[in-house]
Amino acid sequence: VLDAWYIAAHSHQLKRKPLPVTIHGTPLVLFRDDEGSAGCLLDRCPHRNVPLSIGKVVEGQLRCGYHGWRFDRGGRCTHVPALVGVSDKRSRCAAAYPVIEQQGFIWVYMRPGAEPEQGPYTFPITEGEPGYLVVRRTVQTAGSLHMVAENALDVPHTAFLHGGLFRTEEARGEIETEVRRWHDRVECEYIGEARPSGIVGRLLSPSGGVVVHHDRFFLPSVVQVEYSIGTENHVLVTAFGTPVDAYETQLHAVVAIRTRFPGWLIRPFIQPLALWIFHQDRTVLRLQTEAALKYGSAHMASTDVDLLGPHIMKLMRRAERGDLGPVRTEPRIKRGRMLV
Amino acid sequence: VLDAWYIAAHSHQLKRKPLPVTIHGTPLVLFRDDEGSAGCLLDRCPHRNVPLSIGKVVEGQLRCGYHGWRFDRGGRCTHVPALVGVSDKRSRCAAAYPVIEQQGFIWVYMRPGAEPEQGPYTFPITEGEPGYLVVRRTVQTAGSLHMVAENALDVPHTAFLHGGLFRTEEARGEIETEVRRWHDRVECEYIGEARPSGIVGRLLSPSGGVVVHHDRFFLPSVVQVEYSIGTENHVLVTAFGTPVDAYETQLHAVVAIRTRFPGWLIRPFIQPLALWIFHQDRTVLRLQTEAALKYGSAHMASTDVDLLGPHIMKLMRRAERGDLGPVRTEPRIKRGRMLV
Amino acid sequence: VLDAWYIAAHSHQLKRKPLPVTIHGTPLVLFRDDEGSAGCLLDRCPHRNVPLSIGKVVEGQLRCGYHGWRFDRGGRCTHVPALVGVSDKRSRCAAAYPVIEQQGFIWVYMRPGAEPEQGPYTFPITEGEPGYLVVRRTVQTAGSLHMVAENALDVPHTAFLHGGLFRTEEARGEIETEVRRWHDRVECEYIGEARPSGIVGRLLSPSGGVVVHHDRFFLPSVVQVEYSIGTENHVLVTAFGTPVDAYETQLHAVVAIRTRFPGWLIRPFIQPLALWIFHQDRTVLRLQTEAALKYGSAHMASTDVDLLGPHIMKLMRRAERGDLGPVRTEPRIKRGRMLV
Repeated sequence: VLDAWYIAAHSHQLKRKPLPVTIHGTPLVLFRDDEGSAGCLLDRCPHRNVPLSIGKVVEGQLRCGYHGWRFDRGGRCTHVPALVGVSDKRSRCAAAYPVIEQQGFIWVYMRPGAEPEQGPYTFPITEGEPGYLVVRRTVQTAGSLHMVAENALDVPHTAFLHGGLFRTEEARGEIETEVRRWHDRVECEYIGEARPSGIVGRLLSPSGGVVVHHDRFFLPSVVQVEYSIGTENHVLVTAFGTPVDAYETQLHAVVAIRTRFPGWLIRPFIQPLALWIFHQDRTVLRLQTEAALKYGSAHMASTDVDLLGPHIMKLMRRAERGDLGPVRTEPRIKRGRMLV
Repeated sequence: VLDAWYIAAHSHQLKRKPLPVTIHGTPLVLFRDDEGSAGCLLDRCPHRNVPLSIGKVVEGQLRCGYHGWRFDRGGRCTHVPALVGVSDKRSRCAAAYPVIEQQGFIWVYMRPGAEPEQGPYTFPITEGEPGYLVVRRTVQTAGSLHMVAENALDVPHTAFLHGGLFRTEEARGEIETEVRRWHDRVECEYIGEARPSGIVGRLLSPSGGVVVHHDRFFLPSVVQVEYSIGTENHVLVTAFGTPVDAYETQLHAVVAIRTRFPGWLIRPFIQPLALWIFHQDRTVLRLQTEAALKYGSAHMASTDVDLLGPHIMKLMRRAERGDLGPVRTEPRIKRGRMLV
Repeated sequence: VLDAWYIAAHSHQLKRKPLPVTIHGTPLVLFRDDEGSAGCLLDRCPHRNVPLSIGKVVEGQLRCGYHGWRFDRGGRCTHVPALVGVSDKRSRCAAAYPVIEQQGFIWVYMRPGAEPEQGPYTFPITEGEPGYLVVRRTVQTAGSLHMVAENALDVPHTAFLHGGLFRTEEARGEIETEVRRWHDRVECEYIGEARPSGIVGRLLSPSGGVVVHHDRFFLPSVVQVEYSIGTENHVLVTAFGTPVDAYETQLHAVVAIRTRFPGWLIRPFIQPLALWIFHQDRTVLRLQTEAALKYGSAHMASTDVDLLGPHIMKLMRRAERGDLGPVRTEPRIKRGRMLV
């Protein structure tokens, strides 16, 4: 899915030094010109192929560390130091990628020279939203974008892999599920769910109440988990997945929480807990990735309670083909039952 | 040679936790059910491909650590926790391998679902045999099964690689050799051999006497060295080779020794000496393996004193083709001479 | 370019023990016979493929460490210890390479069994030349022979990669260049160059004067930088490049310096300075090599001030084809201009 915007870095990460990043296996370099606008070039000098990221920013241009060639944000070669004559020739251009800075992230459009019609994804709740504690966190793990997205939105594994934190294996009850798929996204609503047992549930919904729970995936790579418990408590975790390469994924998460507890009280618990959960997920994702590489194909025996994974795969494959099918304003709906 | 039993582990290694092993490059997991019977499955959950060996044994079944799917010794999926409905479907089965526990080893038949007509190899002398000291030792080394088997049964290298331990380069004498090959095994008798000079010879046959020395290979991968010196002294080393993959081999050795010396006197010398010899062999086997990988093919200029290696290769190739040729009750015999 | 002599080692490196070296990806072993003459065999015993370099030299022959086979300088198998009968058979020969020892280097001709018509390259100034300080140094770096040769003879990168040491980015002046190419070599003369600014210039030409500067490449792999500054000062760096494999190169440099300063005064500065410069070059050569491997091809956008690199490539490709074209006694000449 190259015709899409991906998060390349946090805005605060890009200062005076060029910043190398890798998206979809492509080495890129970010830098800022004299006005502070971010640029993104292929991280490879057209002259002798060394990474431009070992160079410096000089007069708002990126200067290669080997022979001193300079490039502007558009990839134009503006200066070849030893050369008598014109520097700016087509063959000396560096591939330049569209860049937008938005909501504290630097987004790169993964087709060089493109003029994208739409902007990047907008996170629904960010810092400053009244009543919310908002925390950002970027993590990286082995795993294809699909493996990571499926894992993030999968309910059944929580009782085993994260046993005791969310759900427990004993005392299961049956709930209803409703999966809704549009041309570019899919969501699942879990109906009749009790307040999650375990530590997480108690922490995030002290007052209890009716649980409304949705898990969502939007193309190209947004995963979202939303809990409303009673009228007071609202947890919205939205994470954007950037594929580093076919088997390594970054998740840029924005976590928004509104509970009876003040933010300063919750904050110290959220981070360590989230990282502990992520650590467990990262272990199985690494093993799943190794299996995919070892066995060549990733045969998967899905069941009716693999609610979102197969749909996410379908959406991704359509996006890769460049054809999402007709726009759906009303979703296809599939109801089912699950033990949680 | 997949239609054969291989040693996967020592019985005492398999307790409550599932045990991952690799044979012929295939990752397997061993576990015990509630009666203590050992099972062996492909170490890959059919659901999302993570190794089953990261899971637990629950109620005598192997439970995957990711979503809690359970499998019995036959590979049947007995439980998918979140699923409302039947768990046991063909597509959810794990490949199951025949297992036999015998003489303190767990043997696995390397074709899943097979019903082998014959049992595994039986070691001729094990613990409890009157008059014998019996020691077991499992070692692992770089090297194909063929490289390791040939090395273990090769006489000429001992004067150089293990110079001084068995034989010395000087003072060579000529002996007779007789190689006998059946359809499924080959042995060599060395006739007229003096008591091995060097430390090993003195240690194992204090009283001297006529030396009877046989080296043997049985399909799929048994190597055996037998010395009788005089009437008192008998040394029988039988090792079963399990290929971890094409270039890594495990040797499960059972060493039986009867001499004038009591066992408690010999035992402290045997282990360090054997490990020192093995350490030297492991070094050349690693180099030989690297050469095979580097040069692509393993061209070998054999001579008349490479007595068993070429025969072992021939037996292994026939076994791979699944056709050992007609059963031979009388062996083909080839006589020769060698300097030792 | 296999039909050529390459430096395999310094003479003083080869003593009693066999010495393993790799040239053009081929593992070789050097050893000396009883008269002290050096021999070179493929580092692979024809018997079981282990490196002969783990063996010993016995009676002027190389003895394999596994079974004790012996080989003379011509690769003939002179002894198979356990064998009753003739040892010397064609199938037991080791590939033997022509060897010449000259000017303190051991040279190997890279086609086994060849009888080369010409000897190796002769360094123009070596130890003992009156008035000169001569220093030898062998370094190794990532990089193809072409990358390393181009880097060694490239002027424009010095102002950036080695900023301040030779040249500085500011205060550039225009000079003339003249490139002369013969069928087997290429040189560039830089006309009108000021004495190099920076530390190196001051150190090597204290008295100043007219600068005469040539950079040269001779097939198969000699790179040479020559400075004459005034009548007193002469610096001649001649380095022979031996390809370890396609992406790793050794440079055997002989540095000859004549200045007003005595040798003992310059010597302590030369080594650390040269190594510091080399350290910087090694960094970009490593990155350039990684890029060549990552992108599959090494696309390079050359300009008019890439004076020698493209010519070196042309000469190398012709040598690989085995056809240098007609002998040129008069070079083709190309004049240009450059900012330094």
